[in-house]
Amino acid sequence: MLGARCLFRALRSCSSAPCPRHRPSSKLSVRDALRSQNTSGERVKVQGWIRSVRSQKEVLFLHVNDGSSLESLQVVADSGFDSKELVFGSSVEIQGQLIKSPSKRQNVELKAEKIKVIGNCDAKAFPIKYKERHPLEYLRQYPHLRCRTNVLGSILRIRSEATAAIHSFFRDSGFVHIHTPVITSNDCEGAGELFQVEPSSKIKAPEENFFNVPAFLTVSGQLHLEVISGAFTQVFTFGPTFRAENSQSRRHLAEFYMVEAEICFVENLQNLMQVIEDLFKSTTMIILSNCPEDVELCHKFIAPGHKDRLEHMLKNNFLIISYTEAIEILKKASQNFTFTPEWGVDLQTEHEKYLVKYCGNIPVFVTNYPLALKPFYMRDNEDGPQHTVAAVDLLAPVVGELFGGSLREERYHILEQRLARLGLTEAYQWYLDLRRFGSVPHGGFGMGFERYLQCILGIDNIKDVIPFPRFTHSCVL
Amino acid sequence: MLGARCLFRALRSCSSAPCPRHRPSSKLSVRDALRSQNTSGERVKVQGWIRSVRSQKEVLFLHVNDGSSLESLQVVADSGFDSKELVFGSSVEIQGQLIKSPSKRQNVELKAEKIKVIGNCDAKAFPIKYKERHPLEYLRQYPHLRCRTNVLGSILRIRSEATAAIHSFFRDSGFVHIHTPVITSNDCEGAGELFQVEPSSKIKAPEENFFNVPAFLTVSGQLHLEVISGAFTQVFTFGPTFRAENSQSRRHLAEFYMVEAEICFVENLQNLMQVIEDLFKSTTMIILSNCPEDVELCHKFIAPGHKDRLEHMLKNNFLIISYTEAIEILKKASQNFTFTPEWGVDLQTEHEKYLVKYCGNIPVFVTNYPLALKPFYMRDNEDGPQHTVAAVDLLAPVVGELFGGSLREERYHILEQRLARLGLTEAYQWYLDLRRFGSVPHGGFGMGFERYLQCILGIDNIKDVIPFPRFTHSCVL
Repeated sequence: MLGARCLFRALRSCSSAPCPRHRPSSKLSVRDALRSQNTSGERVKVQGWIRSVRSQKEVLFLHVNDGSSLESLQVVADSGFDSKELVFGSSVEIQGQLIKSPSKRQNVELKAEKIKVIGNCDAKAFPIKYKERHPLEYLRQYPHLRCRTNVLGSILRIRSEATAAIHSFFRDSGFVHIHTPVITSNDCEGAGELFQVEPSSKIKAPEENFFNVPAFLTVSGQLHLEVISGAFTQVFTFGPTFRAENSQSRRHLAEFYMVEAEICFVENLQNLMQVIEDLFKSTTMIILSNCPEDVELCHKFIAPGHKDRLEHMLKNNFLIISYTEAIEILKKASQNFTFTPEWGVDLQTEHEKYLVKYCGNIPVFVTNYPLALKPFYMRDNEDGPQHTVAAVDLLAPVVGELFGGSLREERYHILEQRLARLGLTEAYQWYLDLRRFGSVPHGGFGMGFERYLQCILGIDNIKDVIPFPRFTHSCVL
Repeated sequence: MLGARCLFRALRSCSSAPCPRHRPSSKLSVRDALRSQNTSGERVKVQGWIRSVRSQKEVLFLHVNDGSSLESLQVVADSGFDSKELVFGSSVEIQGQLIKSPSKRQNVELKAEKIKVIGNCDAKAFPIKYKERHPLEYLRQYPHLRCRTNVLGSILRIRSEATAAIHSFFRDSGFVHIHTPVITSNDCEGAGELFQVEPSSKIKAPEENFFNVPAFLTVSGQLHLEVISGAFTQVFTFGPTFRAENSQSRRHLAEFYMVEAEICFVENLQNLMQVIEDLFKSTTMIILSNCPEDVELCHKFIAPGHKDRLEHMLKNNFLIISYTEAIEILKKASQNFTFTPEWGVDLQTEHEKYLVKYCGNIPVFVTNYPLALKPFYMRDNEDGPQHTVAAVDLLAPVVGELFGGSLREERYHILEQRLARLGLTEAYQWYLDLRRFGSVPHGGFGMGFERYLQCILGIDNIKDVIPFPRFTHSCVL
């Protein structure tokens, strides 16, 4: 047995040891290899999965992809390297020289000196077939494998890029990022479609609550953001939200992501609409500039024509109509709606789609909704018989409602009256407190992140823009 | 009633209208005002909350804060502006000239020309008292107001900064960001302390599951990250995770954030440890550089002496010992432990703390744990009688276990045998599939984000580094 002194000497430190860094200099990602300026025979190592194999008499061509880009790296090898294990889907490590490609299809190729098959792929059992373009519905059956296709690869790279762009937008505009809670004891929307949370062992002892109160999965971080906005002026959150709706729609999930912002000292909807339009446009421009090939793949193979529709959205100023005007437009429509448009009734998907089309497929803000339709926290416009609140939704092509926001009721007495009428005064005492101690006019909005991706990529089904979709009757993996 | 043509003309666009931008040029955040180079009387507008009031015979001094920085802006006004409403906590809008301050305490001050009180503050009822330094325990009683204190303000600004720094670290290293699901049908750790999820209306119809299968809140995104790593090589997630543990500890929450990464083509723990050490150090350096005043506040008032302890962690290479060595060290310790250290038994908090102290308060990696202690997915070291797996934990000052990671079992037949022994073969068929189709050696780790903040700031209780803590018997707001 070693003495303590001896053991202490035996302590090894991590950085000082001559250990390989996690990305040794000779190792290159496919993306970096493709962009390499040094094509005069630099010796590199590339690891990834085989996307295609073409065997000629004397030469073997492989395409290797590691997810760092849509494009694969062409590997050229002597036919002596050919083996039964070099098949679509198997993982390989290839060492060789990076050279200028004689073909026009790529700038760079890898002249293989050593090919090692790391993991075989049982091609017969592999649900993704070589050279086939599988429909998105087919791929949805294989949530653990579909990310290995070009199309899901592109969508998920775009999703990652969009996430970063949204964080940057807010950071650059001086917003503080806040993790609003997932488990909550309040119900922001006043809606009934909540998930409840209990320890799984509760089944044995159902009489007591883990949290002492009923606890739910959040439907929005808004109220929590309002709390924090009272200290930081401009705050945002970007996290999962939940609805226990029994819906099989192509625009709804039980678990989806929302980008929410809250801004103090905002006095009119115009200010909010400006931030929303800026967020949409600047995020989209960054995505188009950072992953053009991935976006092009979606626009070419999934939603032909959508490139032009997106450009049309970006180059035009978003439009603004009031809810009252929207109802007038719908009433005049030649189209027959399943739900007859009427002042005081919520807009349905068919109405949203009609309005977007009516506006020339430019996203349109709809403002000032009937007070009776909206939750207690929205600011009363005090505008007489057709009583409205300062709410705003952004309707957009592909998805309909994309953003929802409002000014919040910052006036203590008006808020108190509305809570009293709903019998919520006690439950929302803390929310009233925010108006007792240095209240300020403020407002905010939320954007459905998956709907945003659908809207810019033209993807019809929301299940295809999230890695692991959760919806009624489905929680796979 | 308007005709459709007329309505279309009535459509207004957002950007073209001469509307105020969300940050008009004359409006400045406190941070920007403090940093302004233009102190020759530039006319600006500042909005925020009063942090102090000092009334002299002819002059009134206010300090106004809007959360954009720890430091407040000094406002100097004619005493004629004084009013009963100008009190600690009330919200104000001040217009005036930005001038060079004659005092050494600040570079810039605002010479007020117009002061508008926006929202009063009921000072008697306001739980945060003027000029008092409230203990963190006291503030925990007011989750909706505590963010308005200096200390919580600093902690939450640091949290926002840390979030951005972590995203940047991974992005710059070529990782793709993935939203792993919150609701899941599998239980990564094999532990029993899960939250179960059901629609709240389930109470009425308990016979059917919303998802057709029992669904839980995730305890880790690892298995989902493994899926996606098989397409992108390097992936990370940063989201909420959950434990239904009945714990009142200062290191545990029912809802907390984890940073998790998964890396393909990793063949030894050394590679993982390098990424972990890089992540810890580079994130911390960015925080120290971007919000020095906020960190200083914590180090000065909450954890005196912690500045030196953190510097010590940053300038030394992290240490490495094996689990077997750790047990030897503990057995030789003069300290009496509540739990006797023994090979084959998990390390307790007291053991972790001892080991960190033994290592001179330098974070220490503990490697190669007994196979019997660890979940099925960890890679078998096949090392004989003292059978271990390639697992690694990082133990750190203040918190003990900060990171946990491992190489994953990528060999189909070994994994299949272990799953069979646990009776899990059918449930994890999809996980086995990942090893059938182009399997690669891979590994990953998770870091408790709140523990990370505790560790660098020296904050003793985890409830003080998250905006809205959730734990047994508590889910406030």
